[in-house]
Amino acid sequence: MISHTSEYALRAAICLAARKDDSPASANEIAQNICVPVGYLQKILRMLARYGILTSQRGIHGGFALAKLPSEISILDILTASETQLQRITRCPLGIEGHTKLCSLHRLLDQEMARAEKTFAATTLADLLDGQGGVRHLCDVSGRLPVAVTIDSPARPSSPPGV
Amino acid sequence: MISHTSEYALRAAICLAARKDDSPASANEIAQNICVPVGYLQKILRMLARYGILTSQRGIHGGFALAKLPSEISILDILTASETQLQRITRCPLGIEGHTKLCSLHRLLDQEMARAEKTFAATTLADLLDGQGGVRHLCDVSGRLPVAVTIDSPARPSSPPGV
Repeated sequence: MISHTSEYALRAAICLAARKDDSPASANEIAQNICVPVGYLQKILRMLARYGILTSQRGIHGGFALAKLPSEISILDILTASETQLQRITRCPLGIEGHTKLCSLHRLLDQEMARAEKTFAATTLADLLDGQGGVRHLCDVSGRLPVAVTIDSPARPSSPPGV
Repeated sequence: MISHTSEYALRAAICLAARKDDSPASANEIAQNICVPVGYLQKILRMLARYGILTSQRGIHGGFALAKLPSEISILDILTASETQLQRITRCPLGIEGHTKLCSLHRLLDQEMARAEKTFAATTLADLLDGQGGVRHLCDVSGRLPVAVTIDSPARPSSPPGV
């Protein structure tokens, strides 16, 4: 359901939402925190900036930051910006003329997509932060997300996500 | 979420579940009913037969039939047989050692997959038939699925599904 690009975009956005201050983070810094190759991540960050999810600032102290508050950015916003479309079925995939309602098969498939879309629209980055702070990784051993991200050792190599 | 192969496999299985009698249907006959190219469909039908969803019979009166009752075949069975895996997240995609619980992001994504998996496991082919019968297409204009499928005119060309 979620592409690798979207998975990485979500990690990046959460990493930025979890920063202690509002200063921009470099692509390298974010890549280390979220275990994603920096070359791939740069494309994703620019994609998110084009969609108004991030701001991008050039220069020595430049980098990327959230363009809005974490509570104003939904998971669906990030999925859409990173080109994961939740494929709703709005008309008969068989192309039957005069067919104005979905049959029970396509209604079932569409209902599942609608449900996921609703959940992702109702969940913001702020909902995924736990307010405890201080841990280094996106995921810590207790399964919580950090509210603050600091880099204190080289990143471990990225492994492909299962999503 | 659902690949084209799985969408076509679902259409084929429903087409067979909706037949008036238990005699096998040829790949051509099914392809016409469900608006899928016959070459592609043949591979899918063989795939479903390998997974024990269909029986396959050679010869002039041969073809494909359901291997079980429609009430015994779930949508998840067909998705699995047609190689759509609902990608559950069972461990941290970042590969962090000692990380035994999912963080809130990956828990959210996994919960959505779990919900879809549960729905598809609980829905059988029989649940998608309406018991009214007699219509030609997988989808009729009232949005119901047929309980009986007969071919009375050449099929219209297939159009790619939106799923």
